[in-house]
Amino acid sequence: MPKGFSFKLIKECKQTGARLGELTTPHGIIKTPCFMPVGTQATVKAVLPKDLVEIGAEIILANTYHLYLRPTDKLVAKAGGLHSFMAWDKPILTDSGGFQVFSLGDMNKITDDGVEFRSHIDGSKHYFTPEKAVEIQENLGADIIMAFDECAPYPATREYTIKAMNRTHAWAKRCKIAQKRDDQALFGIIQGGMFADLRVESTKALTDMDFFGLGIGGLSVGEPKELMYEMLEGIRHELPKEKPHYLMGVGSPDCLVNGVMRGVDMFDCVLQTRSARNGLALTSTGRKMLRNAEYKDDFSPIDEKCDCYACKNFSVAYIRHLIKAEEMLAAQLITLHNLRFSLNLMERIREAILSDSLADFARSVTY
Amino acid sequence: MPKGFSFKLIKECKQTGARLGELTTPHGIIKTPCFMPVGTQATVKAVLPKDLVEIGAEIILANTYHLYLRPTDKLVAKAGGLHSFMAWDKPILTDSGGFQVFSLGDMNKITDDGVEFRSHIDGSKHYFTPEKAVEIQENLGADIIMAFDECAPYPATREYTIKAMNRTHAWAKRCKIAQKRDDQALFGIIQGGMFADLRVESTKALTDMDFFGLGIGGLSVGEPKELMYEMLEGIRHELPKEKPHYLMGVGSPDCLVNGVMRGVDMFDCVLQTRSARNGLALTSTGRKMLRNAEYKDDFSPIDEKCDCYACKNFSVAYIRHLIKAEEMLAAQLITLHNLRFSLNLMERIREAILSDSLADFARSVTY
Repeated sequence: MPKGFSFKLIKECKQTGARLGELTTPHGIIKTPCFMPVGTQATVKAVLPKDLVEIGAEIILANTYHLYLRPTDKLVAKAGGLHSFMAWDKPILTDSGGFQVFSLGDMNKITDDGVEFRSHIDGSKHYFTPEKAVEIQENLGADIIMAFDECAPYPATREYTIKAMNRTHAWAKRCKIAQKRDDQALFGIIQGGMFADLRVESTKALTDMDFFGLGIGGLSVGEPKELMYEMLEGIRHELPKEKPHYLMGVGSPDCLVNGVMRGVDMFDCVLQTRSARNGLALTSTGRKMLRNAEYKDDFSPIDEKCDCYACKNFSVAYIRHLIKAEEMLAAQLITLHNLRFSLNLMERIREAILSDSLADFARSVTY
Repeated sequence: MPKGFSFKLIKECKQTGARLGELTTPHGIIKTPCFMPVGTQATVKAVLPKDLVEIGAEIILANTYHLYLRPTDKLVAKAGGLHSFMAWDKPILTDSGGFQVFSLGDMNKITDDGVEFRSHIDGSKHYFTPEKAVEIQENLGADIIMAFDECAPYPATREYTIKAMNRTHAWAKRCKIAQKRDDQALFGIIQGGMFADLRVESTKALTDMDFFGLGIGGLSVGEPKELMYEMLEGIRHELPKEKPHYLMGVGSPDCLVNGVMRGVDMFDCVLQTRSARNGLALTSTGRKMLRNAEYKDDFSPIDEKCDCYACKNFSVAYIRHLIKAEEMLAAQLITLHNLRFSLNLMERIREAILSDSLADFARSVTY
């Protein structure tokens, strides 16, 4: 067990597969199920860390691939690690860079040893191995780090999916061996594409390796949501109860609720922050594209039910004006709102688990 | 006297022409000399209002020309006025739109009656008169509003400068007559270009019209700073003591100190916010272009002497990373800092006036 870490299961929902827990890290306790705002380049876009604390974020995610390329993990280490560098003293999780190498980098070659890729910034050549991914993440110094994995594209053949899954398992083992720091919790990542039996096989393989927690990767990659839920359902009873389960890159309101009901404890997603910059707000009555003319003289808040700074102070008409005038404040306010909306949703989900009413609550989440 | 307004002169500096005062408005008291952050489009770019309050802003400026075009003064009025629209319940000043019509709009025709111009947004045709400028500002509902003026370009002939000055005087009178609301303080604007005798003539003419305060326009339009100081020096003893004096569009640290020493009570400038978005920080040791390679691994704050959120939490190396990675947080943090730096400078100027040490203090402001 890494130093300063523990995961405590507080309650299992009687109506669904949901779990209420507490994940303790050296930088604080995270109530689960939790949503992690994404801070790709060591900043949750458009939000000051003090405001992230205010809206109830207990952990954020940063990206190994991006930070390795810029400003480099070595510079972050010199700054005293990510917490100090970005002035965030609560827990941080870094992904392994695997997903980004495959989706962003211009990939040249993948072998059982590792992946050669080109930087999306300047085209320079780089090489990631499981060992390298761990080394970078140790330099970055997040609380939770992820094993280097191969995420098969969607759709993929069974044959290729097996190959990527087996490589992921081999790499997971190498990551465990490569880990030097004892104050970071390493998660393995379950793959297996859209094949229920492979998902089960992967879950068992990763469980056997006894990671602190398990990531569920390779979902929300273009497949229908029902297929994703089916994959989660299929491994629900295989997942080790005593460990945190992290569904990677998933976080729309309906996916959050449906993931929790299938035993997921942790989520991250760029939807909240990215869509905010496009003027899209998540609300209790559905999505609102605030740029639209219908909001021109709508002097109500983004969401009447929301308690965030944006909703307590500004009207949709004002925010629409900011969008049309290309003012940064638009992204700042909508991002704050979208994050608070999602963190608040998780709070209400946790309350529903506590009162054994999650299935009922889930029906009230309309999208 | 407009309802809810007063200007109290607390102290005159024994070393210089500086004045310590208190400007009371319906939305609060402003300690003078003061610096007003610019919120052109009803937002101080990249800063949440709550953070503006935290760094000590007591009044902000908004632009009549911009808000008339978008979202329109009528929409702002429908929202309950600017304070409500932008969630800023402290004092606001709107300029008259004169300067923007001449500098931003594609001007078609200027007559003694008014100015025809084209919108910089969509090329549509508009017509401003002194009466229209007052009407728009009454719709916007700021505490302090400005008379519509013609700002002569630099350089300009004596002949043209006289013409623009006389038109400004005639327009000032018309603005006074046009004013309907009794809860807004109207300032006249002194012109006269770079001709000391015309500046005196304009000051006298405006003083005779008995505005609540006087703006000093048409400076910092490209002339050497020494020439601007000379113009201020020339009218210093003509300015009515009992009224606030507002030097428009001026606000670099040296100009703030030098303006105060020549009797100026109020300043506004886009330097702080605009330069922040270009990565330029104002500091107690001079200007720093934070994008530069020299700051790559500089883990000290922007300014060791600054008490702002950015300086208390983040290093120059981190902010440089944000700039290189094109993250909004860079502009957010540098803007906060530049504004706090300038508001703090004004605080120290006011303390120096109180202790009769402004001339000594001025020598410590190095640029």
